[in-house]
Amino acid sequence: MTSETDILLRALSADGILRLTLNDVARRNALSEAMLSELGRAFTQAGEDSAVRVIVLAANGPAFCAGHDLKEMTAGRAAPDLGRAYFAKVMAQCSGVMQGIVNCPKPVIAEVTGVATAAGCQLVASCDLAIAANSARFGTPGVHIGLFCSTPMVALSRNTSNKHAMEMLLTGDMTAAARAAEIGLVNYAVPDDELTATTTEMARKIASKSTMTLATGKRAFYAQREMPLAEAYDYASQVMVDNMLTHDAAEGIGAFIEKRAPQWQDR
Amino acid sequence: MTSETDILLRALSADGILRLTLNDVARRNALSEAMLSELGRAFTQAGEDSAVRVIVLAANGPAFCAGHDLKEMTAGRAAPDLGRAYFAKVMAQCSGVMQGIVNCPKPVIAEVTGVATAAGCQLVASCDLAIAANSARFGTPGVHIGLFCSTPMVALSRNTSNKHAMEMLLTGDMTAAARAAEIGLVNYAVPDDELTATTTEMARKIASKSTMTLATGKRAFYAQREMPLAEAYDYASQVMVDNMLTHDAAEGIGAFIEKRAPQWQDR
Amino acid sequence: MTSETDILLRALSADGILRLTLNDVARRNALSEAMLSELGRAFTQAGEDSAVRVIVLAANGPAFCAGHDLKEMTAGRAAPDLGRAYFAKVMAQCSGVMQGIVNCPKPVIAEVTGVATAAGCQLVASCDLAIAANSARFGTPGVHIGLFCSTPMVALSRNTSNKHAMEMLLTGDMTAAARAAEIGLVNYAVPDDELTATTTEMARKIASKSTMTLATGKRAFYAQREMPLAEAYDYASQVMVDNMLTHDAAEGIGAFIEKRAPQWQDR
Repeated sequence: MTSETDILLRALSADGILRLTLNDVARRNALSEAMLSELGRAFTQAGEDSAVRVIVLAANGPAFCAGHDLKEMTAGRAAPDLGRAYFAKVMAQCSGVMQGIVNCPKPVIAEVTGVATAAGCQLVASCDLAIAANSARFGTPGVHIGLFCSTPMVALSRNTSNKHAMEMLLTGDMTAAARAAEIGLVNYAVPDDELTATTTEMARKIASKSTMTLATGKRAFYAQREMPLAEAYDYASQVMVDNMLTHDAAEGIGAFIEKRAPQWQDR
Repeated sequence: MTSETDILLRALSADGILRLTLNDVARRNALSEAMLSELGRAFTQAGEDSAVRVIVLAANGPAFCAGHDLKEMTAGRAAPDLGRAYFAKVMAQCSGVMQGIVNCPKPVIAEVTGVATAAGCQLVASCDLAIAANSARFGTPGVHIGLFCSTPMVALSRNTSNKHAMEMLLTGDMTAAARAAEIGLVNYAVPDDELTATTTEMARKIASKSTMTLATGKRAFYAQREMPLAEAYDYASQVMVDNMLTHDAAEGIGAFIEKRAPQWQDR
Repeated sequence: MTSETDILLRALSADGILRLTLNDVARRNALSEAMLSELGRAFTQAGEDSAVRVIVLAANGPAFCAGHDLKEMTAGRAAPDLGRAYFAKVMAQCSGVMQGIVNCPKPVIAEVTGVATAAGCQLVASCDLAIAANSARFGTPGVHIGLFCSTPMVALSRNTSNKHAMEMLLTGDMTAAARAAEIGLVNYAVPDDELTATTTEMARKIASKSTMTLATGKRAFYAQREMPLAEAYDYASQVMVDNMLTHDAAEGIGAFIEKRAPQWQDR
């Protein structure tokens, strides 16, 4: 990890947990062009940095993330094309960041405090795992302002059932953390004062695994999820065979049989 | 809305809520040819009628809808082909109605009282949202009569997990409203005497939005749901760009920034 | 049913319930080559045996199934290719057994006691229905030993939401039966001393149906699940038409209208 900016804080622990904290509090951590750039770069760098084993995405302030920066978007309308090219650029950038989380070889855990709305809700949905404070709330309120949350729903609808996603999208209502856990948008809702401890414990557990194994598994998960069953089995079987032939699987299985702790190649 | 028939009642409120009420009580609101025709026409007309902003589908009598009309189906067997052409016609008509709900540009909320079985359960599953009275029950009992609920399961399995859908399909058992809410078949189960108020409140909330925005979002939701992730993002990003350039998004975002109520183009 | 081996017990009841019991207790019912062969053969035979109407998969001992036999896998490394061909063979065999359950024309119910891990968890996920004892636990712990549960996740992720599957896969933590029911991996968790009674009651209910109807519906379920909506409706409508023209549908519908018990062709 190299740079530290004001709007996205980076902290890497000795055990390989990279904590990214959205820190544009005055703008409710909106996904401005600057924030999207920072986030995109952070996930790319973390993916390549062997010191990073797992990523926690947290936020400062009362909003986890308020979605797109509406003032910036509105300013874009001044262009001769009324903003079409600018909006397309921002949407491509934002979708790229979201898919960058999915494609990042390191597991990503959202630690959600405050309000996660629109593309901010999408950010949570795009992470591999998510733990929310009981006081956190989620919403896709674009329908209130005439702009349906059409990109957020791509991630949302891959986590919840259709009716639950449609309820959030059509009403724009906020969803409490407990309900978000029930519908699959987050893994758990926990007391506010236990949130960081819970997330950190989960992150530590994952950080103790072989990064090669985690990267292999995460990539395979999302790939097979889009295949028909027979194709998914052919693909996943090949992934297993290749995984078996790695140092870490030989070491891990040997350690298990010999009842000792494994020594991963990257440690 | 033009015609009003005995078996499907229509009532349009001043705020744009079209209430369709299944009213063939003697036949337990079975999806007879006549009922399918009425329903198909009602959703097509509602989609085209600018006065309709949201649709509530309710029912009179102890059955929300009992599925296909088995006496009518059995009469079809008298044909020289033993009914093959007739059954194909009815299935095509019924599947057309169900997809007509999905493709209708106006959001559709099922308000479920009584028993929703077979294609009646499919009707609920096909709506965008569903609220059930606590006393309502759901089932796909075709397996009891040798006729597996194969078309109902298309809609059912797109709302629930595989094991929950298979349990209903293989056992034919009835599912209580509370359980239906747990497995994602309906959004909520509420006390019987609060059902209409709950549904109406949700309908009013949705009716206050821009119909252009609702139509854009509903269409995009079901379209992107069938795409792989990267394709879904490309598609949804384009939808967002087009949506940004509409009057209602400019108005809605402007109103939000200026802290005033938006004036939708269609109001 | 012909053979009975030590590691997989077979018992067929008079009402058509085939009870398969994993019985390699000393190896925690690991999916050794021998066990995979037995299981594959058992499901193939059960699919063809008209006396079998429904299958219950149970287990003896503290482990329902511990997944692959790691000692056998490790021994495979001695080959000149370091085991590649052997691993590929085992993965193909295992994926074949799992898909053999999905493709078996008879409904399969997992009756889960003890610990179901890795490919053992996949076995449960691959069954049409599953009931777990409250004391049962589930896990995909491959990440602990450097070998991500990439084939188990194919079945797991087709039962649960992405975040719930990823939590099991990335942490390797065990999931209690009650939580497994909440996330859709099993239908229900019940008191240990009620497990067999609950499973048997469900099996009896299903065994009383027409096997033709069950086979038609099960095959159609998994086929349509992989199709886009419009294609799924075309396919399922054709299935319904063919089903209507069978003896059992005519008999079942006739019996329903005449308020008498149906006589299925295979009884």
